[in-house]
Amino acid sequence: MSAITFRFPFPAAGQPAVTADLTPRPVDEPLISVMDAAAERGDGAFEAFGVVAGALQATDDHLNRLAESCALLELPEPDVGQLADICRRIAALATPGVESWLKLVVSRGGMDRSEPHAWAVLSETVDFSDARSTGLAIITGDRGFPASYVRREPWMLFGAKTLSYAMNMASLREAAKRGADDMLWTTSDGFLMEAPQSTLLFRRGSTICSPDPRIGILHGTTQRAVFQWAEQQGFTTEYDRYVIDDLLGADAAWFTSSVRLATPLISVDGDPLTMDHALTDAINAFLLARRD
Amino acid sequence: MSAITFRFPFPAAGQPAVTADLTPRPVDEPLISVMDAAAERGDGAFEAFGVVAGALQATDDHLNRLAESCALLELPEPDVGQLADICRRIAALATPGVESWLKLVVSRGGMDRSEPHAWAVLSETVDFSDARSTGLAIITGDRGFPASYVRREPWMLFGAKTLSYAMNMASLREAAKRGADDMLWTTSDGFLMEAPQSTLLFRRGSTICSPDPRIGILHGTTQRAVFQWAEQQGFTTEYDRYVIDDLLGADAAWFTSSVRLATPLISVDGDPLTMDHALTDAINAFLLARRD
Repeated sequence: MSAITFRFPFPAAGQPAVTADLTPRPVDEPLISVMDAAAERGDGAFEAFGVVAGALQATDDHLNRLAESCALLELPEPDVGQLADICRRIAALATPGVESWLKLVVSRGGMDRSEPHAWAVLSETVDFSDARSTGLAIITGDRGFPASYVRREPWMLFGAKTLSYAMNMASLREAAKRGADDMLWTTSDGFLMEAPQSTLLFRRGSTICSPDPRIGILHGTTQRAVFQWAEQQGFTTEYDRYVIDDLLGADAAWFTSSVRLATPLISVDGDPLTMDHALTDAINAFLLARRD
Repeated sequence: MSAITFRFPFPAAGQPAVTADLTPRPVDEPLISVMDAAAERGDGAFEAFGVVAGALQATDDHLNRLAESCALLELPEPDVGQLADICRRIAALATPGVESWLKLVVSRGGMDRSEPHAWAVLSETVDFSDARSTGLAIITGDRGFPASYVRREPWMLFGAKTLSYAMNMASLREAAKRGADDMLWTTSDGFLMEAPQSTLLFRRGSTICSPDPRIGILHGTTQRAVFQWAEQQGFTTEYDRYVIDDLLGADAAWFTSSVRLATPLISVDGDPLTMDHALTDAINAFLLARRD
């Protein structure tokens, strides 16, 4: 897998424009101090954009969510216009004809935390076409708190896409250990949340459903794109609180993410789920056809 | 604050010894890639050792806990003997007469995660003597899950000292916003846990108490040292499940950490706590006199 990295000043809203030298650097070139807040504390925010034919996907949704993450983390507000420009210039460097993704990171800064740092990684996407046809076997994982807890403690950072992903990665290892491909988190009172790197989406008749982000999850950029497309196709869309029986009774279900797109689910905790290959293909064809 | 950094190969148990070039590097020198697991995912483990007169403190307790963190994170087992040697060589570089601390980090590795990386930071300690005499005003923060949850989900990484500290740092900002100095986490059923960077300790008559680590917290290295000392002084020591009334009724209470040592608590959620200056001074004199 080929990847290149870029380091540039953080463009803060209301500040003079930054000058971003976007000379690509090798992915293994040391670009940050070990006392950078990202490396020391997982203290920063990120977004991962799909890149198709040299074009960023869902640019505004990603950058607006990054701004929300910065607000929750009490980082300075980013200048999303400048970030969009920087990310588009980087995306244009992608190898033509190769699915890629761009990771944009904002760290709280160096050891003195005097100002945020920013960097980006442009990488070729692993081929997920097999998973998109065979589907993912998933398990559920109880996060331990009830849905009512989620809105009470701002310092839990619900809704912020932070760099502190040790638990997310441990969830994926746990799934693998138990013979599964991914994990769906739930609240202790049984409401479906999200996966460590994806959003849950399912079809119930002519309605496409996804957990209400207020359950303490990220508002998926790919899920939002699918909702818009689905409405144009005549589906209705719905955000609500759902339980496992809603998923088991669904006509089809997917995990969506900017990098993996819509990947169907074939089972949850060993119980089979229905796959809809035609709809999966139609969704992914739409997702890959987007150009910002 | 002056600090220097070091990067060296991760010494894995059962593998040939590594050669560690311990030439100090400036703290702001880029030593790692932005795709290092530490910077990308907060995916690694760390320990912070006190350094007094060029000597590491609580070396075995720290390194054994690092090995436990690695096991929980499914990282290779570290060769604690080699790490002790490397850390001692670094500690010997500390400025004589200056309280210092050494941060040791193990990351899951570069972008391909093929093997862990290791690095260390040797830094002068901020002067905490004011806080050690005036005490900390703390607030409690409910983590949302009951004590019974803690042992059920290994992927939640309870007991691992990971680099994913965004929520820890947000807890400290929340405390500051509410006019306090620190936060004490509790379970949803009211059991006292730990602080984002410290362990809770309190005196009840002739007994020194600390929450049982099985409540989902780190087993504090400084707390363990204080327990050993306290027993030599004729105190009894106790690990148990405690609630807020236990703290409010205590004869003295502290947050302990390797860097800040024993810092007394002056209030919790606005309710006053008793301070014991003589005992605080005795504990800290003992802690600063340790030499490994």
